[in-house]
Amino acid sequence: MSDKRTAIIERTVALLASVRSVRPLVHNIANYVSMDVAANALLAIGASPAMVHAREEVAEFLGLSNALVVNIGTLSTPWIEAMIIAAETAARQGKPWVLDPVGAGATKLRNDAVKSLLPHRPAIIRGNASEIMAVAGGAGAVPKGVDSANTTEEALAFALSLAKHESCIVVATGAIDIVTDGARVMKLANGSPLMTKVTALGCALSAITGAFAAVAGDRFDAAVAAVAVYGIAGEMAAEKAVHPGSYRVALIDALDALGTQDINTRLRLAE
Amino acid sequence: MSDKRTAIIERTVALLASVRSVRPLVHNIANYVSMDVAANALLAIGASPAMVHAREEVAEFLGLSNALVVNIGTLSTPWIEAMIIAAETAARQGKPWVLDPVGAGATKLRNDAVKSLLPHRPAIIRGNASEIMAVAGGAGAVPKGVDSANTTEEALAFALSLAKHESCIVVATGAIDIVTDGARVMKLANGSPLMTKVTALGCALSAITGAFAAVAGDRFDAAVAAVAVYGIAGEMAAEKAVHPGSYRVALIDALDALGTQDINTRLRLAE
Amino acid sequence: MSDKRTAIIERTVALLASVRSVRPLVHNIANYVSMDVAANALLAIGASPAMVHAREEVAEFLGLSNALVVNIGTLSTPWIEAMIIAAETAARQGKPWVLDPVGAGATKLRNDAVKSLLPHRPAIIRGNASEIMAVAGGAGAVPKGVDSANTTEEALAFALSLAKHESCIVVATGAIDIVTDGARVMKLANGSPLMTKVTALGCALSAITGAFAAVAGDRFDAAVAAVAVYGIAGEMAAEKAVHPGSYRVALIDALDALGTQDINTRLRLAE
Repeated sequence: MSDKRTAIIERTVALLASVRSVRPLVHNIANYVSMDVAANALLAIGASPAMVHAREEVAEFLGLSNALVVNIGTLSTPWIEAMIIAAETAARQGKPWVLDPVGAGATKLRNDAVKSLLPHRPAIIRGNASEIMAVAGGAGAVPKGVDSANTTEEALAFALSLAKHESCIVVATGAIDIVTDGARVMKLANGSPLMTKVTALGCALSAITGAFAAVAGDRFDAAVAAVAVYGIAGEMAAEKAVHPGSYRVALIDALDALGTQDINTRLRLAE
Repeated sequence: MSDKRTAIIERTVALLASVRSVRPLVHNIANYVSMDVAANALLAIGASPAMVHAREEVAEFLGLSNALVVNIGTLSTPWIEAMIIAAETAARQGKPWVLDPVGAGATKLRNDAVKSLLPHRPAIIRGNASEIMAVAGGAGAVPKGVDSANTTEEALAFALSLAKHESCIVVATGAIDIVTDGARVMKLANGSPLMTKVTALGCALSAITGAFAAVAGDRFDAAVAAVAVYGIAGEMAAEKAVHPGSYRVALIDALDALGTQDINTRLRLAE
Repeated sequence: MSDKRTAIIERTVALLASVRSVRPLVHNIANYVSMDVAANALLAIGASPAMVHAREEVAEFLGLSNALVVNIGTLSTPWIEAMIIAAETAARQGKPWVLDPVGAGATKLRNDAVKSLLPHRPAIIRGNASEIMAVAGGAGAVPKGVDSANTTEEALAFALSLAKHESCIVVATGAIDIVTDGARVMKLANGSPLMTKVTALGCALSAITGAFAAVAGDRFDAAVAAVAVYGIAGEMAAEKAVHPGSYRVALIDALDALGTQDINTRLRLAE
C-alpha cells in the first residue's frame, strides 16, 4: 500500500510537470455553465483551453489540439452533431478524448447523445455516480437533475463493466473517487464536501483530465493523476474558504499553487 | 407593522429551512451571462440547479424538476420555442414557474417572447422596474438595455395591474423591492447598491425565487421570502466587500452562511 | 516623452470620467466563455453591458446602444449572421464597433468570419499578437488555439499595415501593448503576467475598449485609454493577488477602484 502510494505520487508529480511544461491545448465542447470555470481550471493547472463547438470548424481545430473534452451538460442538436464529428476526428487522429455524460439518465436526448458518442472510443469517461450508472445501463441509477443521487460505492460494479465494455478508463467521482480500466480499481479520498456546493466543478475535473491525458503515455495514470491533483487542490482550498463563493476562488488558486510537496503529503488512497 | 414583520420573518425562516432540506431541483432556461452565477446562487441557498434548454428534452426534464425559471436574457428562436414548451409543461404539471423578462421593452423579439409566454401562467414574474413596466404595457418604460431606467415606485401601479391581469405574483426589484399579487403589496428594503455593479444578480434572484416557489404553499410568501433572503445576503456581503469582484464572491458566501438570526435582525420593510 | 506621457494621462483621466458619467450601453456579441467576465468588467469600469445576439433583434437593439463589440470566440453560423447584421448596422448608424478576432488563423470558419466582418469598418480591432498577424494575413502567425504564440514586437509591422489597410485602430496586446492607427504607434507597458492565467481577459479588454470608443471623439485616444486603464488595473490587482482565482476577483475590484491618482502614478509607456 505504501509502495503503491509512492508510485502514484511519483507518476502524478511527473504528469503535472508535463502538463505545465507542454501546456497542452485542450479542445472543449463544454456546456455553457462550465465554460468559465473549466477554462480557468485548465489555465490554473498549466494547460491551454479552447472552447470551440461549431460543426464547421471542430475537425479543423482538433488538428491543432492535444486532447478533446466533450461535455453534454447543455445539449442541442447542432452541438450533438459537432460532438460526434469531434469525437470521430479525435479517434481517427489518435488523440485522447474525455466524455463527461452530464445528466445521463435524465432524458432520452442525453442517453441518445451518449449512445452516439461511445462508438468513437473515448479514452476516459468521467461522471458522478448516477451518471456512470446510467451510462452503464444501470437500472439503479436515480437521476436527480445533474447532481448525483448515488454513491460511488454503488457505482463501482457499473464503472467496472462500463470500462470493460468500452475498453476505456472510467472515473466516478464523489466522496470517494474511483478510477478503473475494467481490471484495476484505484480509489482516492481527497477532496472536500464544498466541491458539491459550486457549480460545474465536475466538468472542470473532466477538462483537467483531458490535459493529463494529452501528456500521459498511459490513460489510467492520466486519470488517476488528474483526480489526485484535483482532489488535493479541493482540500487545500477548503483550508482557505468555508463558503462556496470564496471556495471556488480558492480552488482555482490551489490548482495554480499546488506543488510536489502538496502531492507528497496529501495524496490519500481509500482502503 | 411589528406583527407583520414578525410574521414575514417566521415564514421566511421556515421556507429557507424547506429549501435547504428539500433541495428542490430548479430547471432553468437561463441566459448565457447568468448561468454561472445563478447556478452558484441556487447551490449556495441549498437548491439543486439544472440548465436545460433543448426543445427535445425540456418537457421530459421538467418531469424531474420542482420548478422552472425562464429568463429571456439571451434569446434565439430555438430557445424561445423551448421556453414555450417548458412553460406549457410546467403549467400542465402544476409546477410553479418564474418569468424573468430581461430587457423587455428593448426589442420586438423580447416583447413577442413575453407575449407568447404569459398565457402559460407564470406563478411569479420578476424584473427590474423598467422591465415590469414594459411587460405591463407601460408607456413610461424607458429601456436602457438591460438595466433599469425607472424606480420601483414608478413601477408600482404597473406591477399591481400586471399581477391582477395575469393572476400571478409580480416582483419589481430595485432600491426598494416590491412584491404584489395585485391586491397586497409588500415593500422590502434590504440589499445594497453594489448589487447593480455585478452582472446577472437579478437573474440569480429569479432563480432563487424558483427554489422558494418549489417548496412554498403560497406563491406570494415564496416571492417575499426569496426577496428577503436575497436582500439580506446582499447586505451581509456589503459588510465584507466594497468592490464588485469581491462583492460577488461575498454574496454567494452570504447565501450559504445566512441563518435565522440574520433574518431576524436584518429584515427590513419599507414604510 | 514626459510631455507625451502627461498628455496621455490627461486624456485617459478625462475619458474614464466620461465612461463613468455617461455609462454607455455597450452591445456585445460576445463568446460564451467571456460573457460573465466581460459584463462584469464593463460594469466595474462604469459602463452598462448587454449581451444580445439574435439575428432578429441585433439591429433594433443597436439603436439603443452606444457601441458594439463583436467577439468571434465561440462561433456558429447563426451568430456569424447576427455579427454581420450588427456590424453593418453600427457602421450605418456611425456607432463605433470593436472586433475581437479570437482564434483568427486557427480555422477557415474564423478567417472567413473576419473577412465578412472587415468590410463593415470596425473602429478598432483588438487581439493578441498571433490574432493580429493572422488578420493581417501574416504568414508568420502561429495559432496555438486561442493563446498567442507570438510577441507584439513580431506583430508590430502587421498591426501597422492592417490599421492602414482597414483605416482603423489596431490594438495588439501582450507583455507590451501596441496601439496604432497605421501612422502613430503607442506602446504601453502596464499589466501583469497573471492576466494570461485567467480566461477571457483579452475579451474583457475588447469590451472595455467599446465603452471608451462610445464616449471618445478620437478612436486612437479611446484605444490608448482603454489599454492604459486595463493594464493599470491589472497591475493593481497583481499587488493584491498572486494566484489566478483571486487575481480575477482583484482585477474586477481594481477596475472599480481605479482613480486619477492611479493613472498618474502608474501609467507606463514602453521605450
